[in-house]
Amino acid sequence: MLRNDTLDQWDRENLFHPSTHLAQHARGEAPSRIVETGSGVYIEDRNGTKLLDAFAGLYCVNVGYGRSEISDAIAEQAKKLAYYHSYVGHGTEASITLSKMILDRAPANMSKVYFGLGGSDANETNIKLVWYYNNILGRPEKKKIISRWRGYHGSGLMTGSLTGLELFHKKFDLPLAQVLHTEAPYYFRRPDTAMSEADFVAHCAAELEAMIEREGPETIAAFIGEPALGTGGLVPPPQGYWEAIQPILKKHDILLIADEVVTGFGRLGSMFGSEHYNIEADIITIAKGLTSAYAPLSGSIVSDKVWKILEQGTDENGPIGHGWTYSAHPIGAAAGIANLELVDSLGLVKNATAMGTYMKAALQDALGDHPNVGDIRGEGLLMAVELVEDRSARTFFDPARKIGPTLAGELLKHGVISRAMPQGDILGFAPPLCINQAEIDTVVRATKAAIDAVLPD
Amino acid sequence: MLRNDTLDQWDRENLFHPSTHLAQHARGEAPSRIVETGSGVYIEDRNGTKLLDAFAGLYCVNVGYGRSEISDAIAEQAKKLAYYHSYVGHGTEASITLSKMILDRAPANMSKVYFGLGGSDANETNIKLVWYYNNILGRPEKKKIISRWRGYHGSGLMTGSLTGLELFHKKFDLPLAQVLHTEAPYYFRRPDTAMSEADFVAHCAAELEAMIEREGPETIAAFIGEPALGTGGLVPPPQGYWEAIQPILKKHDILLIADEVVTGFGRLGSMFGSEHYNIEADIITIAKGLTSAYAPLSGSIVSDKVWKILEQGTDENGPIGHGWTYSAHPIGAAAGIANLELVDSLGLVKNATAMGTYMKAALQDALGDHPNVGDIRGEGLLMAVELVEDRSARTFFDPARKIGPTLAGELLKHGVISRAMPQGDILGFAPPLCINQAEIDTVVRATKAAIDAVLPD
Ligand SMILES: Cc1ncc(COP(=O)(O)O)c(C=O)c1O
Ligand SMILES: Cc1ncc(COP(=O)(O)O)c(C=O)c1O
Repeated sequence: MLRNDTLDQWDRENLFHPSTHLAQHARGEAPSRIVETGSGVYIEDRNGTKLLDAFAGLYCVNVGYGRSEISDAIAEQAKKLAYYHSYVGHGTEASITLSKMILDRAPANMSKVYFGLGGSDANETNIKLVWYYNNILGRPEKKKIISRWRGYHGSGLMTGSLTGLELFHKKFDLPLAQVLHTEAPYYFRRPDTAMSEADFVAHCAAELEAMIEREGPETIAAFIGEPALGTGGLVPPPQGYWEAIQPILKKHDILLIADEVVTGFGRLGSMFGSEHYNIEADIITIAKGLTSAYAPLSGSIVSDKVWKILEQGTDENGPIGHGWTYSAHPIGAAAGIANLELVDSLGLVKNATAMGTYMKAALQDALGDHPNVGDIRGEGLLMAVELVEDRSARTFFDPARKIGPTLAGELLKHGVISRAMPQGDILGFAPPLCINQAEIDTVVRATKAAIDAVLPD
Repeated sequence: MLRNDTLDQWDRENLFHPSTHLAQHARGEAPSRIVETGSGVYIEDRNGTKLLDAFAGLYCVNVGYGRSEISDAIAEQAKKLAYYHSYVGHGTEASITLSKMILDRAPANMSKVYFGLGGSDANETNIKLVWYYNNILGRPEKKKIISRWRGYHGSGLMTGSLTGLELFHKKFDLPLAQVLHTEAPYYFRRPDTAMSEADFVAHCAAELEAMIEREGPETIAAFIGEPALGTGGLVPPPQGYWEAIQPILKKHDILLIADEVVTGFGRLGSMFGSEHYNIEADIITIAKGLTSAYAPLSGSIVSDKVWKILEQGTDENGPIGHGWTYSAHPIGAAAGIANLELVDSLGLVKNATAMGTYMKAALQDALGDHPNVGDIRGEGLLMAVELVEDRSARTFFDPARKIGPTLAGELLKHGVISRAMPQGDILGFAPPLCINQAEIDTVVRATKAAIDAVLPD
């Protein structure tokens, strides 16, 4: 067995970690952790430290760790056929079965699913499809994409452009020119605290419409949004938001891409966020919850309306020039089938609603009166506590104080993994959907202790 | 057990296949195949048809199908820990070990490996890193990327732009503006048949240098190329090509990205194509052969020179804003370790040289005199037979005749999978590296029979 210090050294010498301070990591100055195993909501590292993972990896291990139903399915598929490609009409029992299971669960207007690997490449596929769609329809000018500030859609060149967070743009020359950002549907951070929720929704809608008019509707191809904001702050939309946005898009013949990488398959207490908020999307992005991360797999679900034009495109131009070697990878597909079955058999969608309600109330009880707690919000098991310097003035801390990361570090000392969201002092929770009340109590207790320690009342 | 006709129907109703004629597939007009299992160089479909896969999936199943060493490693990892993320310094024994194994095998100037999922996203990462690198160096104008016509680097928006094939540009508004294409290093298709190989290399070098001068060297960030052209035609470079290209890049301080998605880990009869052709790259892209496709995993190997600047970047700007949820996925890493061990223990790099030599000679013997066989070429187990209408005039068939696809269809009747490359009438072979002489004889016999049937002498 390899020694921990050997692995630590190999790590610093060879592995380039994502979203990491590369220099500090290589110099051994930053904390690192080698994860060994997991069960339910817990992970355990090579030092024997056991942690309650209240962010489910990167909000993806929805069914929890150590599910033998999925690892057995992966093992069996690996043995039978680890790989064959899905180009030019090739398939496997697993990929075909999973495509049907997804369409059975998706909104009624959805037609087909293209399988990718992660959320970023699925959104990349989506933008390619949207451009292709408008080219087939003879509208070569209709190509710009509207995203929202604080949206998260990936970290590629296009998908990092769609993402509306500074960290993902700075030093990368993003966003690319074809991408525009409109107001984040983030009521707590409304430009004017005097605005009612209804005022703010009207403001978001007006900003969107003004942008479309300014750019020319004939140049705007699609609008992309997460049903509830994820990495940008874990923010359910203000009441009436999607009802206000959708007619504007319809009016200008702008496709709607619902990025359900986080919200798909139960996170909000419904199978899809689209269903939750009555969103009628033209394309839906899925990943994370599709396999609970047991194997990399994402998907672009396209509606009948889009699919018809794609068919027309291939009738006119021959095979579509798009594909990844690992599209519809059998192991991802096998993991997806077992995972979706488990989501059903364990009743996780319902549990997300019940436990989400319980957790929000518990956080409210524990922290509602703390002077630095500005907002406690959530939907299903997507939840955040946002810190402020002054509650009545709604002023934020100087980012240099790193209140969010400090809090997350403090929770870790109490054995709980939360996530300091990248922009603002926002402590995020998105535990496995199998979490129970006792485990939530642990998370809430740790959160209260951490906040009391870092921001004594 | 699901019936084949049920699966067929589900497939047509729900699954969006890559690189497929979508309308014909949905209407059930195109051939389709549901693959069930595989062993060695053979796959078997649900109808019981057994085929010799002389293209190793999409030239990726290098160790062959059904290797229990890898499926066992996947099963074990899935059971122990299917997933944890690798953000902010997190790792697993598998990802760390594999990073070391890769660096142990890579050229000496390489420093770190970033793990992605597929070849496209790895090249996407590379372009982001190149832009970041030049921003940190204070050269915001140095951003354009030079690729080659007939290069293949993926099918995303940026990576499909790098790809120099019409199918991947048409109707997708590609290439993006930052990408330029220079001459393909394809001696058989040299502009003037009178050119010697040395003349042609000088021509390629002159074209590249002229492009750099025209655009301004201060605007060119990187040059990307496959050591030997893959999807664009399976073409080893003309003698002296890389020796001629590299000094030009050095002179103008242009980074060299060697896309070794196909050539990495043995395909050419060497561990890396960079080693094979004396290429000193700044970044190396790997995928396919890294796991033999048993699980999705790719990598961007960055050199010391690049890594130092990335470190400087994070010292100046904090954590790097780049990452995929599934970066360094434990199952991919476990598959990679088992696969690289198998490449060594089975002696596959050596076998690729020996069997490549045998196969090229056998194809030459069988087809060298056929009037429509214009070129038989290859390096290691990457091999092509290019068809021409007239050999002495080197004229090509009308693409509408679809000679390439017809030939591949004919080989299939003989139980052999080859690949009709997308541009030109080029029959491609890239079998698992474990192929033996008897299996090669089968492939060559089938190829001769197919060519004789489609293009009777
Ligand atoms: C809503 C959303 N879309 C897309 C992505 C990108 O997914 P990936 O990291 O798998 O590329 C994420 C990742 O967090 C996400 O939250
Ligand atoms: C040289 C090269 N680079 C990149 C890619 C893209 O890899 P993927 O299909 O895994 O995205 C390929 C795929 O064939 C390739 O051959």
